[in-house]
Amino acid sequence: MRIAQIAPLAEAVPPKLYGGTERVVSWLTEELVRQGHQVTLFASGDSETSATLAPGVPRGLRLAGVRDHTASLLVMLNDVLQRADEFDIIHFHVDLLQFPLFQGLFHKCVTTLHGRLDLPDFHPIYRAFPGMPLISISDSQRAPLRHPVNWIATIDHGLPASLHPFNARGGDYLAFLGRIAPEKRPDRAIEIAKRAGIPLKIAAKVDPVDREYFEHVIEPLLDHPLVEFIGEIGEEEKSKFLGSALALLFPIDWPEPFGLVMIEAMSTGTPVIAWRVGSVTKVIDEGVTGFIVESIEDAVRAVDKVRSLNRLAVRQRFEARFTSTQMEQSYLAVYEQLLSASKPGQTIIEIAPALTPALLAGERVPKHSPFANA
Amino acid sequence: MRIAQIAPLAEAVPPKLYGGTERVVSWLTEELVRQGHQVTLFASGDSETSATLAPGVPRGLRLAGVRDHTASLLVMLNDVLQRADEFDIIHFHVDLLQFPLFQGLFHKCVTTLHGRLDLPDFHPIYRAFPGMPLISISDSQRAPLRHPVNWIATIDHGLPASLHPFNARGGDYLAFLGRIAPEKRPDRAIEIAKRAGIPLKIAAKVDPVDREYFEHVIEPLLDHPLVEFIGEIGEEEKSKFLGSALALLFPIDWPEPFGLVMIEAMSTGTPVIAWRVGSVTKVIDEGVTGFIVESIEDAVRAVDKVRSLNRLAVRQRFEARFTSTQMEQSYLAVYEQLLSASKPGQTIIEIAPALTPALLAGERVPKHSPFANA
Repeated sequence: MRIAQIAPLAEAVPPKLYGGTERVVSWLTEELVRQGHQVTLFASGDSETSATLAPGVPRGLRLAGVRDHTASLLVMLNDVLQRADEFDIIHFHVDLLQFPLFQGLFHKCVTTLHGRLDLPDFHPIYRAFPGMPLISISDSQRAPLRHPVNWIATIDHGLPASLHPFNARGGDYLAFLGRIAPEKRPDRAIEIAKRAGIPLKIAAKVDPVDREYFEHVIEPLLDHPLVEFIGEIGEEEKSKFLGSALALLFPIDWPEPFGLVMIEAMSTGTPVIAWRVGSVTKVIDEGVTGFIVESIEDAVRAVDKVRSLNRLAVRQRFEARFTSTQMEQSYLAVYEQLLSASKPGQTIIEIAPALTPALLAGERVPKHSPFANA
Repeated sequence: MRIAQIAPLAEAVPPKLYGGTERVVSWLTEELVRQGHQVTLFASGDSETSATLAPGVPRGLRLAGVRDHTASLLVMLNDVLQRADEFDIIHFHVDLLQFPLFQGLFHKCVTTLHGRLDLPDFHPIYRAFPGMPLISISDSQRAPLRHPVNWIATIDHGLPASLHPFNARGGDYLAFLGRIAPEKRPDRAIEIAKRAGIPLKIAAKVDPVDREYFEHVIEPLLDHPLVEFIGEIGEEEKSKFLGSALALLFPIDWPEPFGLVMIEAMSTGTPVIAWRVGSVTKVIDEGVTGFIVESIEDAVRAVDKVRSLNRLAVRQRFEARFTSTQMEQSYLAVYEQLLSASKPGQTIIEIAPALTPALLAGERVPKHSPFANA
C-alpha cells in the first residue's frame, strides 16, 4: 500500500527530546515499512526514518525557535495535496489545517486526533467537515465532541516491544515521569509517597510556562528525605528509571487522551497507580497492570497492594495490547476498510461502527461502544 | 462592484475596544458601501455594518474567550471559498490561512498584510504562494520579506474625517496612547516628559502578557507629579484626550507597520513626536505634522519646538493624506486594476509597479519605490 504519514513539525520524528505524537508516528511508520508498505513520511528534515522522508522544514520547529507553526505546516500540507495521487492513503497526525484543503479527498484520508478535545476552540472545524474519517486514541477522548463526526475507530498507542525491556526484579521507589504541570499533579505524587513512607523519584521537564508553578508549588515540597527530583531524562534512561521502580504514579487531573508513560512502565513490568480520569480505565487492567484510584487514601492503599502484582503478568498484558505491531495492524485494517469503501467521485464516506480495533483484535469488546457519541 | 471583505475574527468590526485591523476594515467597508458598491463583510456576528454581514462566529473571539482562532477562521474562509463566484474581488485582512485555499483564484484576490513581517515564522507561506496580490500598509513593512512576492501597492490607513474633530486650541500636556508594552517604550515617554518638565498623560491598556513589564518597569516610574496614568480609554474619549494635548509621543522601539494613533492625533490637529523607525518617516511630515527623533535629547528639543507648529496645518495634512475616503479610492483603484488584468484561466498575475497609491493620488512620489524589494 502507498501510504503518506503526515507528522506535526514541532519535533523531529522521532523527537530529539520530548514529543509523544512524533514518537507514535515514528513507531507506526517503522512498523509499516517493516511490513513491506511504501511509506512517505512528511515531517521535519532532521527526522530519521526507513520510510521516504519528505521534509517540510529543515528541522523541528520548537528547537529551531519557530513559535507559530501554521505557515510551515500549511506549506507542507499543500505539498501533500499536490502529490495526493501518489498515495492510496493519507494519514494525518495534525489537528486542523488539512480539513478544508483535502475536502475533495476524504475517501483516502484519515486523521488521528492526538490531543484533548475538551477545549472548544477546535470544534468548529470538526463540525464543518464531518466527513473526514477520524481516529481517537481512547474512547473517553471523544466525549466532548457532541456533534456528529466520522469516527471510524479507536486505536491504542503501541510501542516497540523491545524498546523498554522487561525488568523482573523492579525496585522499591515510586516513579513520576513526564512534565511538571498542574494537570499532571506532581504534588499528589509527593503526598502519596510521604504518606506511604516510600521514596519517590521525579523525572520531569519543566516548560517555561510551568516555571512559576514549579517554583511556587512544587519546589518547596521537594525538600524531604523521601523525595528526589532528577529533571528531564532521555529515551534510554527511561527503561532503567521505569524498570527499577515499584510502581509508576500517574495522579493526573485532566482528561488525558492516552498517556504513553503508562504503557512504557508496563513494558518494563512496572505496574501503574493512576487516577480515574480520561483514558486511564481503558489502559489499565485493574488488579493486573495496576490500580485505579480516586483519592490520596486510595493511592496509599494501592501502594501497599502493588507489591502483590506479578510483574511478568504486567509485561504480558503489555505485549498482548500495546505493542507497535498491534497498533500497525489496527491502522492497516482501517486503511484497507477505507480503500474498499471508497468509490471514485465519492467524497464523504461513513464507515460502519463494526470496525473497532477491539473487534478487529478480536479480544476486548468495550462496555460502551466507542460510537455512542458518533 | 461585488466585493467581499474578510476580517479577522478576534474582534467585532468595528471592535468593542482595542483592535486596529478591525477598525480599518470597518472604515473601508463603510466607505465602499457609501460609494455604491455591493459589499459582503465576513466578520464576527456582533459586527455592525451597512454592508451585508456574513457572520463567521457569533461574537469576537477574544472577548468570547477563544484562544486559538484557527478553526473558526478556517471555517469562515471555506465559506468564502464556496461563495467565491458571488464576488468580483475578495479582499483578505488575515495573514495566512487563505493562501493555499484560494490558490486557483488569485486573479480576484488581494491580501492586505496588517502585521509586522520581521518575524520569520510566516515567511514560508509567502514564499510558497508568490502569486497572491499583496498590499502593504507602509513601504518599510515590506523590507524583511526578501524573496519575490506579488506586492501590488502600499496603501496608507485612513480614518473618517469627522471621527476625531479638529481642536484649534490643543493643550499643554504630552499624550501617550495605546498599549503598555516594551516595544512601545512608555518608559521613554516618561523620561522625555520629566526632562522637558511637561505633564504626561498615559492612556493605555495592559495586556496580561505585559502585566509583569508594567508592574516591574513602568509602575515605579509613575510616582511623579508630572505623570498621570489613565488606563484604557474608548474611541469617544480619544478625541478629547488627543485633541487637548500639546503633542503625541510615539517613542516606539519596533518596526511599526503603520501606527494608526499618529493619524488619529493629526486628525485633531495635535502633532506627533516619533522615533525614526518603521512607517514613521512616511507618516509624519517633518516640521509640519510633527518631528522625527532618534534620542531622548532630540525628543526633548522637539517638545520645545512643537509649540511652533500650526495645528490647522496638521489637520489639513491629515485631510490631504489619511482619510478613509482616500484609503477607499486607493483600494478601489487596485480592485479595478485586478479586474482588468484578470483573464479567465489565469491564476497568477503580476501588476505593474506603476500602480502605487502615491501615483494614483497624484500627489507624493516616494523617494524609494515601494517595489524596490518586490
